[in-house]
Amino acid sequence: MQLCEMNKEQLEKFRDEVKKEYDGYKALGLALNMTRGKPSAQQLDLTMGMLTALTENCKSEDGTDCRNYGILDGISEAKKLFAPMLGVSDDELIICGNSSLNIMYDMIMRCYVFGVDGDQKPWKDQGKIKWLCPVPGYDRHFAITEQFGFEMINIPTSETGPDMDMIEKLVSEDASIKGIWCVPMYANPTGITYSDETVKRFAALKPAAKDFRIFWDNAYCIHHLTDTPDKLLNIFDECKKLGSEDMVFEFASTSKVSFAGSGVAVMAASVKNVKYVDSLMTIQTIGYDKLNMLRHVRFFGSYEGMLEQMKKHRAIIAPKFRAVLDALDSGIAPLGIGTYTKPNGGYFVSFNTIDGCAKKVVALCKEAGVVMTGAGATFPYKKDPHDSNIRIAPTLPPVSELEQAMKVFVCAVKLATAEKLLESK
Amino acid sequence: MQLCEMNKEQLEKFRDEVKKEYDGYKALGLALNMTRGKPSAQQLDLTMGMLTALTENCKSEDGTDCRNYGILDGISEAKKLFAPMLGVSDDELIICGNSSLNIMYDMIMRCYVFGVDGDQKPWKDQGKIKWLCPVPGYDRHFAITEQFGFEMINIPTSETGPDMDMIEKLVSEDASIKGIWCVPMYANPTGITYSDETVKRFAALKPAAKDFRIFWDNAYCIHHLTDTPDKLLNIFDECKKLGSEDMVFEFASTSKVSFAGSGVAVMAASVKNVKYVDSLMTIQTIGYDKLNMLRHVRFFGSYEGMLEQMKKHRAIIAPKFRAVLDALDSGIAPLGIGTYTKPNGGYFVSFNTIDGCAKKVVALCKEAGVVMTGAGATFPYKKDPHDSNIRIAPTLPPVSELEQAMKVFVCAVKLATAEKLLESK
Repeated sequence: MQLCEMNKEQLEKFRDEVKKEYDGYKALGLALNMTRGKPSAQQLDLTMGMLTALTENCKSEDGTDCRNYGILDGISEAKKLFAPMLGVSDDELIICGNSSLNIMYDMIMRCYVFGVDGDQKPWKDQGKIKWLCPVPGYDRHFAITEQFGFEMINIPTSETGPDMDMIEKLVSEDASIKGIWCVPMYANPTGITYSDETVKRFAALKPAAKDFRIFWDNAYCIHHLTDTPDKLLNIFDECKKLGSEDMVFEFASTSKVSFAGSGVAVMAASVKNVKYVDSLMTIQTIGYDKLNMLRHVRFFGSYEGMLEQMKKHRAIIAPKFRAVLDALDSGIAPLGIGTYTKPNGGYFVSFNTIDGCAKKVVALCKEAGVVMTGAGATFPYKKDPHDSNIRIAPTLPPVSELEQAMKVFVCAVKLATAEKLLESK
Repeated sequence: MQLCEMNKEQLEKFRDEVKKEYDGYKALGLALNMTRGKPSAQQLDLTMGMLTALTENCKSEDGTDCRNYGILDGISEAKKLFAPMLGVSDDELIICGNSSLNIMYDMIMRCYVFGVDGDQKPWKDQGKIKWLCPVPGYDRHFAITEQFGFEMINIPTSETGPDMDMIEKLVSEDASIKGIWCVPMYANPTGITYSDETVKRFAALKPAAKDFRIFWDNAYCIHHLTDTPDKLLNIFDECKKLGSEDMVFEFASTSKVSFAGSGVAVMAASVKNVKYVDSLMTIQTIGYDKLNMLRHVRFFGSYEGMLEQMKKHRAIIAPKFRAVLDALDSGIAPLGIGTYTKPNGGYFVSFNTIDGCAKKVVALCKEAGVVMTGAGATFPYKKDPHDSNIRIAPTLPPVSELEQAMKVFVCAVKLATAEKLLESK
């Protein structure tokens, strides 16, 4: 029986039983952390060979001594490694340090201080700036645009991606809208991948602002979890058909391929944009860590080597996603007290309670020793208008802990939902 | 006989002889590059052990798995490694990525966009910003403040540091002056170290702008070349006596200690400033490369280990400085056609021609196959008002090449000076 069909007495009985179960969990004194999308130690072990992949010859293929200064936007073999991953050519790539978030931040900063290219006014000189944020989304994206003081506008997301009707209307009408955050594949946290139509409509956008830019964070482009992986259209291919390739900055990294703290981050953009970024970046730094680029090239050998590595990651984390989904399938679905995604890849399961329960669920979990990502974190300003979305990050804990944590989580959802429904009885 | 004492006939004879020598060099078809302060391959070889210093245990002393995300401002043992180098405590340090230039750039950007602290207006909202530039100085410093559009003001430098009378007067009178670039030890390019009085006067500055900041680039703090190294007062010690420690941002790196492209860069600041920077930085990145920090800690073992490494560097580069100075002592000094520094450390020898000859000397060198740093590069906007300063970077070429290049250089100085003096005969 679904909870919404219960009368007051049935609900009270249900609530009391669940409360007893919940108190039992509290008594266990658990201390489980499910907050962030971090790889587990077992996943990081997959890359230990990288630490000995570069012990002698530090020359790149063109003879550059990678130990020394020089080479602003990445050694050529690193470009060859990542070009097929993003489906771009070498001269459309910039290879940077360990953090794609940092590249995105720097890119926002450049647009803000110097303008999106040599011709457009810097955003800082254009008064109020607005930014589109597909929700639920990545908290660290929203934190950047919040720090720069942009007004963030929520864009609802469905199975096919963000609401393109809304986006097309907004950007065509409002020249103060300068950009949008997108995680187009296995999105954080929903796990959905943008449909072909969505990508084509992004490429075909006709923004009122000439300096509108799509920040295409393709963080999970090779992070498949199943035998039926999603497929994402190459946005640059679509843009090139329409001459709109200057509108897109694409980002990715090996943070969840090699080492989360010591990977290599990359940016893809039109040749024109790469030249412009290089012209500013050459003042910012002499160059990024080329030895770490070389380490990645030597360890993976090729893009295919990276894909092989991803299969090993999948073998470790797919069972964790299954544990989460099994718990939800058995504990939540029959009661009709929440909806959730079943992603084919990425790092998250996105869970929606009935309206007005997410904060309560997270608080109940915490009280029982299970720390979840804060409710609201997946929305700009940490404000979930429905107080409904909770991001579940299955990768870090071992399966046994995950199963334990999910029992607590399911119990917390039951309890919070029952109490919520009782309010209106 | 000094050139300035020669009459026209003597000078013409001198010029003709030197011209013959110069044409001889040109005929050799040399291709020597003395442009940048890069370490040589032999120096980089000193650090090869670092590539195998971290192959297994990636845990930091507090148990953090350095392979994963986390820890914003550096692992604790890296802080312990660098704290004695800069004479600050752990909570006055931020350990970053591979480039101190990048930290300085980011710091300028933060002040510009968000303000120097939580209270002051961002520089971008304060109209015209001016910046003090001790000259000759580091071209990449000047390039940053030029990119941000600050008006740069030349400050002459003597043996004791920049002209403090001028600095004190300017900063006390003009609130649009927001900062100064300083390389206080073995300065780039003069090689001088600021005197105790200079450091004390910096600490005691009373700027009209509350948000005036000293950018203290201590790049060469342990880069001694002789048995009688210079000593630099700890500016934070002096500031703390006066309560002015928020006025200073200090920077350093291991770029010329370990690997130039893959070192670790650090920033020191007051506890208040560190907290403020951390609060902004936490939006910019999840953290810097902790494995590379750990690699440095494991390889050097301690600050003393770094000092030992610097002795090995000295053994390699001191003879190169000697080759440069020998060439100048024998070829230039007797003729009175140039002045130059004899640094106790750092990476450069700073040479001054008589007024109006530097560009000509660099052009003559280039024509004979010896590329020097461009004349003017050591001044803001690349404009040397006296067309006199040339930066000599002895570290990269082998001694044999250096000797060859210096022969050409000395010959070019002779030729250019003779021609210049003949103009007014």
